[in-house]
Amino acid sequence: MEISQQLSEIKSSYIREILAATQAPEMLSLAGGLPASELLPVSQLMRAMESLIDTPEVFQYGETIGYKPLLDFLRDKYLHPAEIETMVCTGSQQAIDLIARAYLNSGDIVAMEAPSYLGALQVFGLAQANIKSLEQTRGGPDLNQLEALFSAGSVKFFYCVPDFHNPSGVCWSIETRKVVAQLCTKYGVMLIEDVPYRDLRFSGAELPLVSSFCAEYSFVIRSFSKVVAPGLRLGVVSAPKELLSPLVQIKQVADLHTAVPMQAALLALLKSDEFASHVTLIKSIYHKRYNRLYNALTPLFDEHCQCDPVEGGMFVWLRLLRIDARELTRRLLTKNVAVVPGDVFYRNQQDACEAVRINFSHSSCNKLDIAVEQIKQALSN
Amino acid sequence: MEISQQLSEIKSSYIREILAATQAPEMLSLAGGLPASELLPVSQLMRAMESLIDTPEVFQYGETIGYKPLLDFLRDKYLHPAEIETMVCTGSQQAIDLIARAYLNSGDIVAMEAPSYLGALQVFGLAQANIKSLEQTRGGPDLNQLEALFSAGSVKFFYCVPDFHNPSGVCWSIETRKVVAQLCTKYGVMLIEDVPYRDLRFSGAELPLVSSFCAEYSFVIRSFSKVVAPGLRLGVVSAPKELLSPLVQIKQVADLHTAVPMQAALLALLKSDEFASHVTLIKSIYHKRYNRLYNALTPLFDEHCQCDPVEGGMFVWLRLLRIDARELTRRLLTKNVAVVPGDVFYRNQQDACEAVRINFSHSSCNKLDIAVEQIKQALSN
Repeated sequence: MEISQQLSEIKSSYIREILAATQAPEMLSLAGGLPASELLPVSQLMRAMESLIDTPEVFQYGETIGYKPLLDFLRDKYLHPAEIETMVCTGSQQAIDLIARAYLNSGDIVAMEAPSYLGALQVFGLAQANIKSLEQTRGGPDLNQLEALFSAGSVKFFYCVPDFHNPSGVCWSIETRKVVAQLCTKYGVMLIEDVPYRDLRFSGAELPLVSSFCAEYSFVIRSFSKVVAPGLRLGVVSAPKELLSPLVQIKQVADLHTAVPMQAALLALLKSDEFASHVTLIKSIYHKRYNRLYNALTPLFDEHCQCDPVEGGMFVWLRLLRIDARELTRRLLTKNVAVVPGDVFYRNQQDACEAVRINFSHSSCNKLDIAVEQIKQALSN
Repeated sequence: MEISQQLSEIKSSYIREILAATQAPEMLSLAGGLPASELLPVSQLMRAMESLIDTPEVFQYGETIGYKPLLDFLRDKYLHPAEIETMVCTGSQQAIDLIARAYLNSGDIVAMEAPSYLGALQVFGLAQANIKSLEQTRGGPDLNQLEALFSAGSVKFFYCVPDFHNPSGVCWSIETRKVVAQLCTKYGVMLIEDVPYRDLRFSGAELPLVSSFCAEYSFVIRSFSKVVAPGLRLGVVSAPKELLSPLVQIKQVADLHTAVPMQAALLALLKSDEFASHVTLIKSIYHKRYNRLYNALTPLFDEHCQCDPVEGGMFVWLRLLRIDARELTRRLLTKNVAVVPGDVFYRNQQDACEAVRINFSHSSCNKLDIAVEQIKQALSN
């Protein structure tokens, strides 16, 4: 049976294929965007699930928008004014998909930085959107390109990951945040601010959300996959109520609602005294791992590759000066080291720069050392 | 911001609006399709969740197709041959949505019985399908209409709920099952067999799945919301591997995968010795409730209404002879009794017969008595 036109627009995720291929125990995978398995707060989650005995209603059908006690808690946590509403999604990935399904028609223009998060590229591809790519600088998107694009009219959304971008690790400067918000307001472009890595800042000062400067034009998407656990599939999307309600309608059709026991367990965890120290712990360990990786890579810079430092998140973006990224990836796979070639993060392959994405959250310092040793050899061959 | 064309095709679910309106403690709701809250296997689920301490990997990212040990268990349980694959979904609702997104283009023809499950009507509406309605008889769809429609060509899917249909309670005869399978095979129409109520048979002999006669042309959608717990949001879809894989691609974009702790807890529950007796218990209690409701309604038959007996499921379908269904619904709401007017289950309001759907699984026998007393009064006014 022929597949739908929309599905023929996307290709299967190369990353998830790599992830499947790298399940072998001997493989040292720096390919995924996985939190450290040994740091997942399993015993805290077990206690949180034990507490569900007091709320048996979580096993019955729930409301599409989410579990009310969790939404109340998050309203306070995020200091949301009355006009902003939040909906729980089956992972933050679903939030992107719901926005697209609620608002996009085939051919509508969506602006994105290039490179960009692959899951968002796939959503907007499935929606048959007209994706316009903006070059990324060290401080965020190229603002001249952005204004030229916005001022030409008809841009519906600007999708962005301003904190520790996937794959590039870039964190937008405060100036860029303000200008982007002004331009969205001026040209009526809706901002989709996706911040899965925001809570993983391990150095530097926290910066305000871009949407804090243009709240009435923004969707903010948060994930609990990076600081709690990905297996729960929990994310939330916040927006002015009238912008959010079409998403609630789509979600009702898509899956009725997200698993309530997971939402209630998340709430118990977020409310627990231990949660803050859990976040502190993972940040400090990711900081150590990042330092180990970055320092080990430094001797290669300028001759073989370049890499900007990062202040958080899970990735560094290694730009290659003398070798093709697919070739490096192939060489490393023969040595049981997996990284992701940069071209998968581009809508148009011809825009791709030669780079690989390297994850530092999922592997120990010793494993990172081994991986860098292999990278050195592969680059020098 | 303008919503997408596809969203403008659907209206918000009246049932979920009623459900929200009937949360008031004084409301006696026979409107929803909820299992009995007091019979949810909460303590069994708590034990199942305790066992997750032994599989901490369920908190990490999982595979899009589902939790492998659960899929292995279900393959044995359903006696699937090697060519049939199963994917776990965020509720069976998601399975319908994924099929539509993977295969339907705007204007494609989908056949459905009328009345039909509202959630499926919404999915196919969102997909901008051309929905063709078939009249339902006591034994299933009108087979002459079905063949006339199929033979005219271009029907892509036939969506059906052959076991204890929502809203009508109809269970297809064995003859109908065989003929529908033959016609699907003959005309190359793909069957979507949605069986959320199949395990809730409380009288009569079990009948084979329609798809058992045309497996290579079928998707089978099963739900764990009715026999385990809806809050978990777990359903599965099974089909020949090449038919299923486009759904896996869409799901990867839609939400990456379904919550793994819920899948693992379900597996522990299904494997436990207690599970069979849980299913026996809920069936016996639903049988009692159905008998109480049906016997109490019987004196009204012929003069005020008609109602065919059912052998399982959660609903009876009360066809009204002297009053409009919306008017009856309104009168009952003033007496704090909620039912669903039948027209919401039709694509075209003008096809609707005057009927109301009454749920018997969620209310005690005493409450059903009170509700019937109010129905009697409302019908006699």
